[in-house]
Amino acid sequence: MNKIEQIQRWLADNGQDIALITDPKTIQYLTGFYSDPVERVLLMAIFKDQEPFIFGPALESEAIKDTGFSSPVYGYLDHEDPWVMIADQIHARNTDDSHFAIEKSQLQVERLEALQQVLPNADFSANLTPLIEQMRLIKSADEIEKLKIAGKWDDFALQTGFEAVQVGKTEDQIAADLQYALMKNGIMELSFPSLVQAGPHAAEPHGATSENKVQNNQLVLFDLGTVWDGYISDASRTIAVGKPDEKSMDIYQVCLEAQLAAQEAAKPGITAEELDKIARDVITKAGYGEYFIHRLGHGMGMSEHEFPSIMAGNKMELQPGMCFSIEPGIYIPNVAGVRIEDCVHITEDGCEPFTQTTKELRYIEQ
Amino acid sequence: MNKIEQIQRWLADNGQDIALITDPKTIQYLTGFYSDPVERVLLMAIFKDQEPFIFGPALESEAIKDTGFSSPVYGYLDHEDPWVMIADQIHARNTDDSHFAIEKSQLQVERLEALQQVLPNADFSANLTPLIEQMRLIKSADEIEKLKIAGKWDDFALQTGFEAVQVGKTEDQIAADLQYALMKNGIMELSFPSLVQAGPHAAEPHGATSENKVQNNQLVLFDLGTVWDGYISDASRTIAVGKPDEKSMDIYQVCLEAQLAAQEAAKPGITAEELDKIARDVITKAGYGEYFIHRLGHGMGMSEHEFPSIMAGNKMELQPGMCFSIEPGIYIPNVAGVRIEDCVHITEDGCEPFTQTTKELRYIEQ
Repeated sequence: MNKIEQIQRWLADNGQDIALITDPKTIQYLTGFYSDPVERVLLMAIFKDQEPFIFGPALESEAIKDTGFSSPVYGYLDHEDPWVMIADQIHARNTDDSHFAIEKSQLQVERLEALQQVLPNADFSANLTPLIEQMRLIKSADEIEKLKIAGKWDDFALQTGFEAVQVGKTEDQIAADLQYALMKNGIMELSFPSLVQAGPHAAEPHGATSENKVQNNQLVLFDLGTVWDGYISDASRTIAVGKPDEKSMDIYQVCLEAQLAAQEAAKPGITAEELDKIARDVITKAGYGEYFIHRLGHGMGMSEHEFPSIMAGNKMELQPGMCFSIEPGIYIPNVAGVRIEDCVHITEDGCEPFTQTTKELRYIEQ
Repeated sequence: MNKIEQIQRWLADNGQDIALITDPKTIQYLTGFYSDPVERVLLMAIFKDQEPFIFGPALESEAIKDTGFSSPVYGYLDHEDPWVMIADQIHARNTDDSHFAIEKSQLQVERLEALQQVLPNADFSANLTPLIEQMRLIKSADEIEKLKIAGKWDDFALQTGFEAVQVGKTEDQIAADLQYALMKNGIMELSFPSLVQAGPHAAEPHGATSENKVQNNQLVLFDLGTVWDGYISDASRTIAVGKPDEKSMDIYQVCLEAQLAAQEAAKPGITAEELDKIARDVITKAGYGEYFIHRLGHGMGMSEHEFPSIMAGNKMELQPGMCFSIEPGIYIPNVAGVRIEDCVHITEDGCEPFTQTTKELRYIEQ
């Protein structure tokens, strides 16, 4: 049963007639076609018992067909009303008073109201998001292969980044050098802007790469990701330039211990919150609990914001094929920040990381 | 009256009590703080007659305060329920049965349902989007300054891109070279992935930069944008390598004539659809109307998807301070594609472009 058939089965089982897919990533997951149409409308309609269609900007129609999608593709021009045209296609199939399941996590209120206006007899109360999340939760062998390739490029990016580090160089310049090396190898897309943070700047866990210069005897934090055929990588490493102070060295070792403990424990049957607790306990016992201010990890695959979320309160049991990050961090304001992260996939009896760069503290002498 | 006061005035005038801002770009517009929280919750509450607050991830709280936002900032940890905490803050102000105006163009259905659940007596039917769009439609002198700086960097990017063109070089490599040059100058953020397309590949108006190699006697299309302090640039140029065929040269001249005619005509009082028609008529009269398959332009400022949309059916009159692209394109499948684009701001008696790179066809000899 392919993915579209799975959705059709779900529609039938749940008293629904049509699934309206509006998340571009879900359309890519189902068809291989990706485009972020921003304010234009891109929508896939999957019918319980009829052929699906994709509706989108006319200037995308050829690209959609080129990916091998063999069902109808309807295009609209900028001055046309996409909602009226979508309703026309729905009406043409005699299904205008149907039950629609929508992606509530993604569809904007304004678009739902537009649909309600052109399809006044339809019921839009069903949420398709849980099904899609469930389908995307367990990665296939094919998906894991892509994640592995993205991971190899992440190892390359980390290595290149380490080599670009010099005292007096800005974080921006280091990020520029490693991104250029990726682009020269044809890796044009990143999963997120490359993050390089030196010294106390790394204590801002959501700060950005800046003009801050690397100084001697500091830690430097990298958080990098690439995209391979729609699948991402995401890894963090923290390295030492010269001889950082004792506190910095201590939080590095504690963070490493937490990361390794969680990665060792990740296997089928353990819950997401148990895994979070294993890493958190290490950091708390060492006295740094208050400086670990985010969850242990996030699900990943086509984006870095999938399931399972590895955090307190999530009692989901890990299963083979689940992919997520294990990324404890310790951020001491005005001192230093450390984060060490691998993304892994759960196997039959443990887990395997997508990135292989060593986590032993690497020293760069200046 | 500052921007927040404008929203408070609107609330009072429209029988609303609280504006819930959830578009990160709107929060940036109002406060200077920007972060894309992705699946985390970032929300600003503006009360008719009380102090506003921002609610977001705890790991962003310091960064929000650092931008000078002097009202309360409430943070939440990953395992906490943000919606319950938001409702608590609303209740604390005795406004739990209020009328809320929400950004319907941006707020997802799932989040609206979460709000309805924690605030069951509230009315969420009012749409804040039209007010925000109206406020952002007319740019201030300060905003136009930022757009001009972004435009200068776009000129730099185009120039660097032209110099990187060589027969046999891939589009990817040219894009890598120009992006590296930007990054070496501290321009780390692009408004969109740099687009470089050579020869027939440029006839796919929404195609991406690829491994396609530049050949002699082709046109090469560039569509580039940078970000300066939250404001974007966006410009397209098409250049000639060697001596392209007559058809390519012809569509270039027609496209240029259309672009210049529209830019000349852009001034207060003309409508968006009239402007579109001026460019479209040039292309249609030359026999290429069917190959100009998108609107003439889009509004821009903090993003390339603002108002006014320059297209058939939009009867909005242009006014000083409006900013948008003028970008006719002619795309002949399997032959060539041309697009020539400047973004402009409407002045008292005409318009001024943000980019100055010549639009006369530039030849690169190989």
